[in-house]
Amino acid sequence: MNTILSRRTIRQYSGRDIEPALLERLLRQAARTQTMGNLQLYSVVVTRDAQRKAALSPAHFNQPMVVQAPVVLTICADFRRTTSWALCRKADPGYDNFLSFLNAATDALLFTQTFCNLAEEEGLGLCYLGTTLYQPQPIIDALQLPRLVFPVATLTVGWPAEEPPLSDRLPLEAFVHDETYKDPSPADIDRFYAEKEALEANREFVRINKKETLAQIFTDIRYTRKDNEALSTTLLDALRHQGFLS
Amino acid sequence: MNTILSRRTIRQYSGRDIEPALLERLLRQAARTQTMGNLQLYSVVVTRDAQRKAALSPAHFNQPMVVQAPVVLTICADFRRTTSWALCRKADPGYDNFLSFLNAATDALLFTQTFCNLAEEEGLGLCYLGTTLYQPQPIIDALQLPRLVFPVATLTVGWPAEEPPLSDRLPLEAFVHDETYKDPSPADIDRFYAEKEALEANREFVRINKKETLAQIFTDIRYTRKDNEALSTTLLDALRHQGFLS
Repeated sequence: MNTILSRRTIRQYSGRDIEPALLERLLRQAARTQTMGNLQLYSVVVTRDAQRKAALSPAHFNQPMVVQAPVVLTICADFRRTTSWALCRKADPGYDNFLSFLNAATDALLFTQTFCNLAEEEGLGLCYLGTTLYQPQPIIDALQLPRLVFPVATLTVGWPAEEPPLSDRLPLEAFVHDETYKDPSPADIDRFYAEKEALEANREFVRINKKETLAQIFTDIRYTRKDNEALSTTLLDALRHQGFLS
Repeated sequence: MNTILSRRTIRQYSGRDIEPALLERLLRQAARTQTMGNLQLYSVVVTRDAQRKAALSPAHFNQPMVVQAPVVLTICADFRRTTSWALCRKADPGYDNFLSFLNAATDALLFTQTFCNLAEEEGLGLCYLGTTLYQPQPIIDALQLPRLVFPVATLTVGWPAEEPPLSDRLPLEAFVHDETYKDPSPADIDRFYAEKEALEANREFVRINKKETLAQIFTDIRYTRKDNEALSTTLLDALRHQGFLS
């Protein structure tokens, strides 16, 4: 698994398709990941059709990878299959609640990451789209996801046609805590974020956006309070609509 | 990454400790996983101390792995460090909301699974404890997790002292959908669950619990409606308490 050390998010893909047999093998292997009660509370919708990609695109803010990648995978928290199984077997399923959503989302995300690690080992390039949680309803509509199925992750997958630089990471002490959580002091924060703040690309970002600090890029532009609060409402509405908050 | 094909959940560990340098290397490598805006919205609390393990144990229904494993990792959704950074940099952080929780939980779970893949490649044995979401508050208390930090996964980690049989998996067609979600018919359900229902261990489970079907083991004993609904309330209360539903 040495590729984890050199992995980068890939947004540009060559014209080469992904063989169905390869994709199936990777999905089957990823399903060896542990899940709750071995119930595999997830589903994957595979999008190859150009029109279907175009339908998904606005939900992902028209990021070009969605229409350009040969394969788009939408990974869903899925308690529907298990619920259908129970109903076919004289059992009373009680999975239309928030805990069950989070259990299924957990299964789906762990499966997703094993898939990522396997696909990157295979030489494929991936982009993980965080936008899935921003506008779930149009994704639900485009993929015809029924009750108790909720999209939690999207991957665009293809053969890489770029090699962007390796991105920075926080030092280990910033995110690993011994025995109890140690709240960082202002001096700790300075040390943890020094490398990120010193990167020329980030300094340029601050300049062209006429901001004073890099943190303001995140709070004022990329992930604002206003957007987060509005999208939280949208997200909770979609969860309710899919039956996970009854 | 061939170990994914032969991995099993390991609940019994040899007396051998895990070298701090090995654990640090695996955590550092796992942090190569993609995260939202490269913000790494997670923290890991490492528990080695016997008293601290004993304090965590009841939150995990006293499953023996928690006190027997040399290392327990509690992986948390963490928007606190990013919030502290913003506050130190004249920025206005707006991450005390549900979307931000789910974004941070996503980062935490993807990181967790890369750690699992790496640790299993190294020969370590893991047990993923789903109980973390059942009783988050005692874990929050034991590890002194502050506002905007929320435990989403626990791993017990050690060198394996058992080799349990490989567990079953659903066929690919049960969880992979082409282009749109195909709702399974009763005949599909029969086919998807045939192998699981035929396993001798599962049939024995049904017999000793005096149930009629395997699905009833899940709905009546392991994951009941009553528990799921009560624990959903507990979970939402804990999220509110940690500042993610304001």
